[in-house]
Amino acid sequence: MTEVVIAGIGQTPVGEHWDISLRDLALKAIEAAIQDGAGLQPQALYIGNMLAPVISGQSQLGALIADYAGMGWVEACVVEAAGASGGAALRQGFLAVASGMLDMVLVVGVEKFTDQVGTVVDAALATGMDSDYEAVQGLTPNAQAALMMRRYMYEYGVAREVFGGIPLITHANGVGNKNAMFRKAISLETYTGAGIVDDPLNLFDVAPLADGAAALLLTRPELVPQGFPHPLVRISGSSLVTDALALHDRPDPLELKAVRISVERACRQAGIMPKDVDLFELYDASSILAVLSLEAAGFAERGKGWQLAQDGYCSLQGKLPICTMGGLKARGNTGGAVGVYQAVEAVLQLRGQAGQNQVKNAQRALVQSLGGPAATAATHVLQKLT
Amino acid sequence: MTEVVIAGIGQTPVGEHWDISLRDLALKAIEAAIQDGAGLQPQALYIGNMLAPVISGQSQLGALIADYAGMGWVEACVVEAAGASGGAALRQGFLAVASGMLDMVLVVGVEKFTDQVGTVVDAALATGMDSDYEAVQGLTPNAQAALMMRRYMYEYGVAREVFGGIPLITHANGVGNKNAMFRKAISLETYTGAGIVDDPLNLFDVAPLADGAAALLLTRPELVPQGFPHPLVRISGSSLVTDALALHDRPDPLELKAVRISVERACRQAGIMPKDVDLFELYDASSILAVLSLEAAGFAERGKGWQLAQDGYCSLQGKLPICTMGGLKARGNTGGAVGVYQAVEAVLQLRGQAGQNQVKNAQRALVQSLGGPAATAATHVLQKLT
Repeated sequence: MTEVVIAGIGQTPVGEHWDISLRDLALKAIEAAIQDGAGLQPQALYIGNMLAPVISGQSQLGALIADYAGMGWVEACVVEAAGASGGAALRQGFLAVASGMLDMVLVVGVEKFTDQVGTVVDAALATGMDSDYEAVQGLTPNAQAALMMRRYMYEYGVAREVFGGIPLITHANGVGNKNAMFRKAISLETYTGAGIVDDPLNLFDVAPLADGAAALLLTRPELVPQGFPHPLVRISGSSLVTDALALHDRPDPLELKAVRISVERACRQAGIMPKDVDLFELYDASSILAVLSLEAAGFAERGKGWQLAQDGYCSLQGKLPICTMGGLKARGNTGGAVGVYQAVEAVLQLRGQAGQNQVKNAQRALVQSLGGPAATAATHVLQKLT
Repeated sequence: MTEVVIAGIGQTPVGEHWDISLRDLALKAIEAAIQDGAGLQPQALYIGNMLAPVISGQSQLGALIADYAGMGWVEACVVEAAGASGGAALRQGFLAVASGMLDMVLVVGVEKFTDQVGTVVDAALATGMDSDYEAVQGLTPNAQAALMMRRYMYEYGVAREVFGGIPLITHANGVGNKNAMFRKAISLETYTGAGIVDDPLNLFDVAPLADGAAALLLTRPELVPQGFPHPLVRISGSSLVTDALALHDRPDPLELKAVRISVERACRQAGIMPKDVDLFELYDASSILAVLSLEAAGFAERGKGWQLAQDGYCSLQGKLPICTMGGLKARGNTGGAVGVYQAVEAVLQLRGQAGQNQVKNAQRALVQSLGGPAATAATHVLQKLT
């Protein structure tokens, strides 16, 4: 099998970038990744993006961004799988390099949510659900998460407060990430006292929509020159798995089966067990999705995922650090860019460049982004190349 | 290099399918391709789609369609590059199989334009242009084609009527395609007498927007069982190339440089010259794009592309048959499905299953779909496997 490595990374700060256009955001991340990759020049560009056609009236981002970045005549297209778009774009970049037909590929995640507000954004986000059967009834992703959380509380007899462990960790981790949207730790009191968004979800159970771009430069290790400035990170496992899009089409609304299968496939390819990873960049668009992901990935029994976030197990110093740079909740939910941000952050950890958020002796990272309630799960195992 | 072949094909009739949902259209094409592929089961699904998020309020089509087609837990995502989406999805499918990591891949193009009309569709189509600099001024794809056509007439001193050769050929070829939207030949008088859409474009210079889905089953030849019911078609060349998205960013608005480079790369990979192909499924969203494509692909000098369509050269019995099943003009412009329809039609030709439209002794086909004014060009060389 052809080995694929990440040689360069780039990201913009996450936030409300009303003064930076979609193409400029992407350009900043691309320039950073090429600089970090010591000038290696990509032949292709895979864009992870979710909603630019709806929110910014812009499709065909591949040609737009490739040209704007001065990458004349390269191969470029958009890869879309809602919130898993970034992970799916990474998967395509991985396959392209693995095919041996492309030597260097740039994977860019870019999203600009905050140019629109209110019902425009709600309707846009709802395109990621089943339009004919869910969105048409007025269901939104947050309302869906609320239904799942309510069901979880009923099924396992737990109180709303048990979900607070997730945002407490992510907000604590956001403090040390200079690119995070929110860099303030919160207490359990802050969590329990927060306003309800969609009952029982409160403000801290939902990741904020934000603008941002991140980029990864992929190549084969033999193409990286001697004396390269960074350790290389190998993509040792890669998988993309789909489930029923509509929640009502699943036999069990609390089982994220695509998460389970996707983790299994990626870990099998990497020749490891999930427990062998040193950190897990999971998809915390809502606290309930994070808890269910921990369970489906095999780190906790059904109904017990929230406990991992209570006892330090998932903190930076714990056995399984999650969302080490703040996750979607504190870094910000950048839609189709999430999967690329997660991979950039995992690379920082594996290189030992994560600053005060460094996970000690991080060798292997599990990275996963989800589309909808894990209707799509994109999972990668990243590993320090030794 | 791993060899990649097309083992199964499927398509729905093209038209205004107000009674068939997006997912049902896709399903029909998938079922047809799997049946044609003698039951080979795909592990992945790449969807070529352009505007479902805007027109149907539906993104994450990968999960939606994979689940609806009963393809549990397969890999699936959308590949978008405006009108080149279908060709770009085929490119991703090709790379995925070539990587050796996936054995069987389904590439599906699906588009449903006609559920919306008027300004909704105009605005949706304009997302494929440069939103910040072109669409914002009110430019539409048709208006842009009109500007290019006017410029061509001025530059080369030709009358509007010279473009009529293209729709005369496509409409003649549509007669023999039972899946075509329009199955009626037209005369030069009909062409010259037609109403103006965007001066100088008339009704026959613009392909009609239509609904439809088409599918291709890709695999490696060694995985196809003995006694397979059809000849296999090899993908011997594949390329995806981008140019400046905005027309005003190009030094020469009449040179489709991405077409030229993309044809060069695909033919080089296939080890042939463009003149070695037996047919050219080109992208005739407008007559001017077809003429410029013939020139950029190297079949005619600059300013002379229209002549090829005058003298029988591009007819079914000619030296270089184009749009052999009616092209976008007579089959219908199915947006992100176009590139997949073109490949399906080329496979029919190479298998000798094109009925009354059969190109005699067709061995090699050049297939190309374009996003915008060839801001993206996806080109494939398909070849009968002997």
